[in-house]
Amino acid sequence: MTQSDKTNRQIVLAERPVGLPDENTLRLEQTDIPTAGKGEMLLRTVYLSLDPYMRGRMSDAKSYAEPVKIGEHMTGQVVAQVVTSDLEGFAVGDYVLAGNGWQDYAVSDGAQVLNLGANPENPSWALGIMGMPGYTAYAGLLKIGEPKPGETVVVAAASGPVGATVGQIAKIKGCRVVGIAGGADKCAHVVNNLGFDACIDHKAEDFAEQLKDACPDGIDVYFENVGGKVLYGVLPLLNPFARMPVCGMVAWYNMTGLPEGPDMGPAILGTILRMKVKVEGFIIFDSFGPDTYKEFASEMTGWLAEGKIKYKEQVVDGLENAPAALNDLLLGKSFGKMVVKV
Amino acid sequence: MTQSDKTNRQIVLAERPVGLPDENTLRLEQTDIPTAGKGEMLLRTVYLSLDPYMRGRMSDAKSYAEPVKIGEHMTGQVVAQVVTSDLEGFAVGDYVLAGNGWQDYAVSDGAQVLNLGANPENPSWALGIMGMPGYTAYAGLLKIGEPKPGETVVVAAASGPVGATVGQIAKIKGCRVVGIAGGADKCAHVVNNLGFDACIDHKAEDFAEQLKDACPDGIDVYFENVGGKVLYGVLPLLNPFARMPVCGMVAWYNMTGLPEGPDMGPAILGTILRMKVKVEGFIIFDSFGPDTYKEFASEMTGWLAEGKIKYKEQVVDGLENAPAALNDLLLGKSFGKMVVKV
Repeated sequence: MTQSDKTNRQIVLAERPVGLPDENTLRLEQTDIPTAGKGEMLLRTVYLSLDPYMRGRMSDAKSYAEPVKIGEHMTGQVVAQVVTSDLEGFAVGDYVLAGNGWQDYAVSDGAQVLNLGANPENPSWALGIMGMPGYTAYAGLLKIGEPKPGETVVVAAASGPVGATVGQIAKIKGCRVVGIAGGADKCAHVVNNLGFDACIDHKAEDFAEQLKDACPDGIDVYFENVGGKVLYGVLPLLNPFARMPVCGMVAWYNMTGLPEGPDMGPAILGTILRMKVKVEGFIIFDSFGPDTYKEFASEMTGWLAEGKIKYKEQVVDGLENAPAALNDLLLGKSFGKMVVKV
Repeated sequence: MTQSDKTNRQIVLAERPVGLPDENTLRLEQTDIPTAGKGEMLLRTVYLSLDPYMRGRMSDAKSYAEPVKIGEHMTGQVVAQVVTSDLEGFAVGDYVLAGNGWQDYAVSDGAQVLNLGANPENPSWALGIMGMPGYTAYAGLLKIGEPKPGETVVVAAASGPVGATVGQIAKIKGCRVVGIAGGADKCAHVVNNLGFDACIDHKAEDFAEQLKDACPDGIDVYFENVGGKVLYGVLPLLNPFARMPVCGMVAWYNMTGLPEGPDMGPAILGTILRMKVKVEGFIIFDSFGPDTYKEFASEMTGWLAEGKIKYKEQVVDGLENAPAALNDLLLGKSFGKMVVKV
C-alpha cells in the first residue's frame, strides 16, 4: 500500500521493545487524513528521516525527551509538501521541514516548521547534512571539540551522516582524521571519497591495535557517537587536555541491562582525571542557540558549494519499509544518511 | 629517632605496592645532611603534607606525573625553614613552601620555592587551605563547576581539606551543599561546624537513598574526588547541564585491577549524554595559570579572615609515622588535612 490521498498511514508504537525492535514493536495503521482549519495547513510527507535517537524514544527510561506513548505514531523529522494552506508564508506546493513523525499527513499551525521554498535543490538534505545530523557534527566538533590544526580527531560511524561530516570538517580545520566504520566498503569510502587520513574497521580482531597505529601522536578529540569497544579502544590513546563531545552511544542503544564486567568506570574516570579530559554531552537543539545554527547553515552551504564536504544518502522506498530500515541503521547496516521516501 | 642536625632521614620507596601500601612499601633510611653550595640554601623540613595523590606516585602506571623510582625518597610538598642561605630573598629562619619530599633536609637553588616569611601565622596552612588542596577546591569548583545561587552542590570526602573547602565556598556562593563523609562524627562536623546543609555517611546501607532525599532538586555540581559508589549514587540525580570537575578518585586508588561488573560505562556515558553533563578532569597546577592562583590567594585570605571558611588539620608527629598516616588517609580514617610535624 503506497501513499494516497484517501487515507493517512501511520506507524505507531505497539509495544516497548526489549533490545532490538522486532515485528511486534511497530504497527502500520490507517486513519483519516486530518482536515486543516483556519490558520492551519495540511502537510504531506515526502521524506522521513531515520536516526539512531529513535530507539531511545521507544523506551520509557528517563531520557532527554518524552518517550512515544503506546499507540502513538513514532516521532521523527520529515520533509513535507504543503497540500492546503490558510497560513501566510506557506503556499501550496512549498517544501517544509517539520516534526510530523512516521505518517503520510499532518496538520500544522506553522509552529516549528521551516519553509524550504517551492523548489529546493535537494529537499531531503534538510534531514541530513543541512539539518540535525550536519548541525550536530558541526557544533559538537567545533564548539566542544575545538580541534586545532595538526591535532588528531577520531570519529566512529564515519560513513554515517554525523561521523562523515565531523571528519570532513576536521580535515578542513587541518587535523589528522581517523574514522571508524564497519567493514571494508565503508572504510574505503571514508578514506577515498571523504578524504579521511585513515579508517579502521571496528569488526577487526585487532581493532584496538590498528587504532593505536593510526594515531601515532595520540588522540586530541574523540567525537563520541557509539560507545562500546570503540570508546574503550580510544581511552588509552587520549592526550592531555583531550576533548570528547558526546552525542550518542549507538552501540549501547539496544542493551537490555548493563553489560558484564569488569566495571570500566575507574578506567573512564581515571583517564579523564590523569589526562585532564573534558567530556561533554550535548543535545543539539538544547545545547546550542540560533546564532550557532546560523553560523552552521552559512558555513555548510559554502563548503557544499565548494565541494569541500561530500554527502551520501541511502534512500529507502515506502513508509512500510521504515521499521526494517531503522533496525538496519541500529545494527550498522546502513551506508550514508538514511531517509525514507514516503 | 627524631629529627637531628647530624643525619638526614629519608623515607624511600622500597617496592611498588599492590593495593594498599604495606610495611614493605616504604623504608626509613639515613644519609648525610647535604651541603648547600654557592647560590643555594639548606632547608630543614618542618611540616610534610600527606595527600591522596601520593598513592599514584608509588605505581608505574601511566599517570600525570612521573612515578617515584624504587630507592628514591617519596615526593611531597613541605614547609621548611632555611638553615643556611647563599640566596637573595631567603634569610636564615625564613619559612618556605617547597617540594622536598619525605626527608629532613634538602638543598635548593630557590626554584619553585615560595618564601612564606620569617613569622607566618600558620606555616602549615600553606600545605592545605592556602596551598594545593585549597586551590584545587577553589579552581575546580568555581572555574569548572561554575555553581549558581540556589543550585545543589555535592562533594565527597567532605571533612577532608578539599571537600570541606569546596562545600564552604559553595555555601558562600549561595548553593545548597550536601557533603558525603565516612561516619557520624565527620558528618556532624561537616554540618555543625562547616555549615553544609546535609551530610550523608557513605557507610550507610541506604546511602543512595539518603543522598537522593538530601537532593530533592537533583544535583547541579558534583565535585568528584572519590569515585566508586559515591559516583554511582550521584549519576541518577544529575540535572540537565550538570557539571562534574574531577580531581581524584581515592576510592579506586588502591585497586589492583578493574572491579567486577556490571560495566557501568554505559550508565556513565548515558548520563553524560542524556543530561548534557560536562565532566572535566584537572590537575591544579597544569590546568590553571598564575592569574587564577592570585585570585584564589586573595579571596581565600579574605574568607579566612572573615571566618567564612573554617579549616581543620590533623597533625601527625614524626616523619617515621608518615607511612601509617598515609594509609589512614587512603582508608578514610583521617579527619581534616593531614600534615606530619617532622
